[in-house]
Amino acid sequence: MIILNNAKPIDGGITAPKGFKAAAVRAGIKESAPPDKLDLALIVGDVPCTAAALFTTNKVQAAPIILSKQHAANGTARAIIVNSGNANACAPNDTANALKMAESAANALGIDTQDVIVASTGVIGQELPIAKIEAAVAGLTDSLDSKGSEAASKAIMTTDTFAKEFAFEVEIGGVPVKVGGIAKGSGMINPNMATMLAFITTDAAISAEMLDKALRVNNDFNSVCVDGDTSTNDMVCVLASGLAGNAPISTEGEDYSCFCDALSNVTLNLARAIARDGEGATKLITCNVTQASSKEAADAIAKSVVSSSLVKAAMSAADANWGRILCAVGYAAGQFTVDNVQLTVASKKGMLTVCENGKGVPFCEETASEILGEEEISILVNMNETHEGSEGAALAFGCDLTAEYVRINADYRT
Amino acid sequence: MIILNNAKPIDGGITAPKGFKAAAVRAGIKESAPPDKLDLALIVGDVPCTAAALFTTNKVQAAPIILSKQHAANGTARAIIVNSGNANACAPNDTANALKMAESAANALGIDTQDVIVASTGVIGQELPIAKIEAAVAGLTDSLDSKGSEAASKAIMTTDTFAKEFAFEVEIGGVPVKVGGIAKGSGMINPNMATMLAFITTDAAISAEMLDKALRVNNDFNSVCVDGDTSTNDMVCVLASGLAGNAPISTEGEDYSCFCDALSNVTLNLARAIARDGEGATKLITCNVTQASSKEAADAIAKSVVSSSLVKAAMSAADANWGRILCAVGYAAGQFTVDNVQLTVASKKGMLTVCENGKGVPFCEETASEILGEEEISILVNMNETHEGSEGAALAFGCDLTAEYVRINADYRT
Repeated sequence: MIILNNAKPIDGGITAPKGFKAAAVRAGIKESAPPDKLDLALIVGDVPCTAAALFTTNKVQAAPIILSKQHAANGTARAIIVNSGNANACAPNDTANALKMAESAANALGIDTQDVIVASTGVIGQELPIAKIEAAVAGLTDSLDSKGSEAASKAIMTTDTFAKEFAFEVEIGGVPVKVGGIAKGSGMINPNMATMLAFITTDAAISAEMLDKALRVNNDFNSVCVDGDTSTNDMVCVLASGLAGNAPISTEGEDYSCFCDALSNVTLNLARAIARDGEGATKLITCNVTQASSKEAADAIAKSVVSSSLVKAAMSAADANWGRILCAVGYAAGQFTVDNVQLTVASKKGMLTVCENGKGVPFCEETASEILGEEEISILVNMNETHEGSEGAALAFGCDLTAEYVRINADYRT
Repeated sequence: MIILNNAKPIDGGITAPKGFKAAAVRAGIKESAPPDKLDLALIVGDVPCTAAALFTTNKVQAAPIILSKQHAANGTARAIIVNSGNANACAPNDTANALKMAESAANALGIDTQDVIVASTGVIGQELPIAKIEAAVAGLTDSLDSKGSEAASKAIMTTDTFAKEFAFEVEIGGVPVKVGGIAKGSGMINPNMATMLAFITTDAAISAEMLDKALRVNNDFNSVCVDGDTSTNDMVCVLASGLAGNAPISTEGEDYSCFCDALSNVTLNLARAIARDGEGATKLITCNVTQASSKEAADAIAKSVVSSSLVKAAMSAADANWGRILCAVGYAAGQFTVDNVQLTVASKKGMLTVCENGKGVPFCEETASEILGEEEISILVNMNETHEGSEGAALAFGCDLTAEYVRINADYRT
């Protein structure tokens, strides 16, 4: 876990903030799933919530994406219903079934269908077994619980190997405010402006406009790349109940910054967890770019390094093949020079500079191998184009490429 | 082999056209290479040649790239010296060693250093053993042969599993004109405007300007993607001896078109061979996009499909996971709609439409599996945005993603 600023990590995930309950059940959506696999989750606010959401930029948009965009457009929502095992994308009756999913949650909860966000993840192109979902909704609402975050975080998993759940607390004007989040990741992950599935709750009192702004600024999911494939179903959605009792946030300022501190801790840790849990991955790769000519260049370079198949394959073998890193720096978009690039590999075992001024320097291969043998490794790229601490900095998160990735994806539909 | 228009395939590769000799030797550049691995090749024109070349767009440019750009700038050249086993990129004394390589060939041949193109491929960052190359050049010039194409095509291989060599003949104004080419590919392959190593010869009489134009138009290497990594050393270079005796080509017109017919057959077949021989690949994937809104959109879509890790992994298992194909269509750059997309998989075993109007259609999985089980498969993407035969069409070549790719690249430097 990374902890930035003064945010305090707390337990409870999306049900840590005041005013939220969650639940999950097994509806049996994917028949070949293990009998205990939860596959349908519901997240509900005790009161109407302000809401903000970001959606995939893929021109193929799953039916729940299209519907949820409409439902989130007015800046309010109260419930999120989400299934795994079927993406409800490009499938027979996809539009009707997304709406039915929203209606069935709304009816069971006694709220407007317009206030229900719908999300789906799984195989593309197969008809969603909507009857199974409708039949499961009663049990779902019955089991809503103020400790239901963990169950919900498990229900949204597909090929994920662990559930991803974080919560942080900050003080806003002396009042404790909490932000919690869950996410699913693993494959088809290369969010680009929008993201994979992530659901965040907060009890902050905050306007829809500022919530939207905070989400866009702290959308660390854009810094994750597992395999370069931007999904048809990516979504991140945040609900704010306002029950913390802080003075409502409606402009930028100290309160807004405090809120962003909590939110960014949640998004950053979820993003790291998603990268670490990339399909077949054995390690988390963080690329930290500094002193680039611009923020945009830094972002492109960091993303390029963690996206390179050759870098990812080298890291799986703890091989400090810095030429591939430099190569990936070089083909990143943007105008910059590579003559002054310094490359350093780092982990808790230490750090080692392997390239200075765009050329290799002698280094001990055994030390490099020991550093890169860790489960969390960093590639530090100092572009030396501007001064230290300049805006031209960025972080990106990725994972290594292993034979297991291929095995998982060669045979995903069965 | 694909044969377009009226070009006739012939034997002889780069030494098929009149006025070219080639040779290859083992200089011992990569010590761990098998003892019989050729690693240094020379291609020489009997007479001064017009020349055109394209180079990598990576901002990290290997020393031979920088030098060869200067040497090709005046539109003439007479020799190409190329080594495998070391990229001479970002390495100690790289600039000096690239120049020494050119000088040593020039001295042995008695030509100007300015007329020598230099290319290198292999590991980045290690010093080129220039003394070994200089020592080997005498043996290289001694063994120049008008049947030397095959040896040269072998010498430029790195992780390639087969040599890539093609030649075609056309008639220009009743005169037979030949174009031959060799290429190396395999890894770090995602040419973008420039390309991997490919060397082409022709005996056509053609101006440097028209040669350059023909090369840019017929640069099919840009349609290949193995792993999305654009190398620091990509280069394609064509030399024209003018010895065929055709009326010199200095403008567009019928003669120029005939020449392009021969050239495009060479580049297309080399590009296909490079994709088929992608690291760890078991099959060639061709994506054929038609009826897109523009040529640019078609190019982006075709490249996006063959670049998708998820599509590539599915194809390795002969799995008609069309949702991933549609997803890759959807995240391609450009403005277009996906509502009318038709997806068809094809091979010599038949063809099968799996998606219509952006949604899956029922199909027989066994048939799909049989079609995709072939070594050469096609994915046909009809965007249905314009009429049949419109400009909005493109081809791209890729390969499947296998565990073997990861194995090769986890441990490439040793």
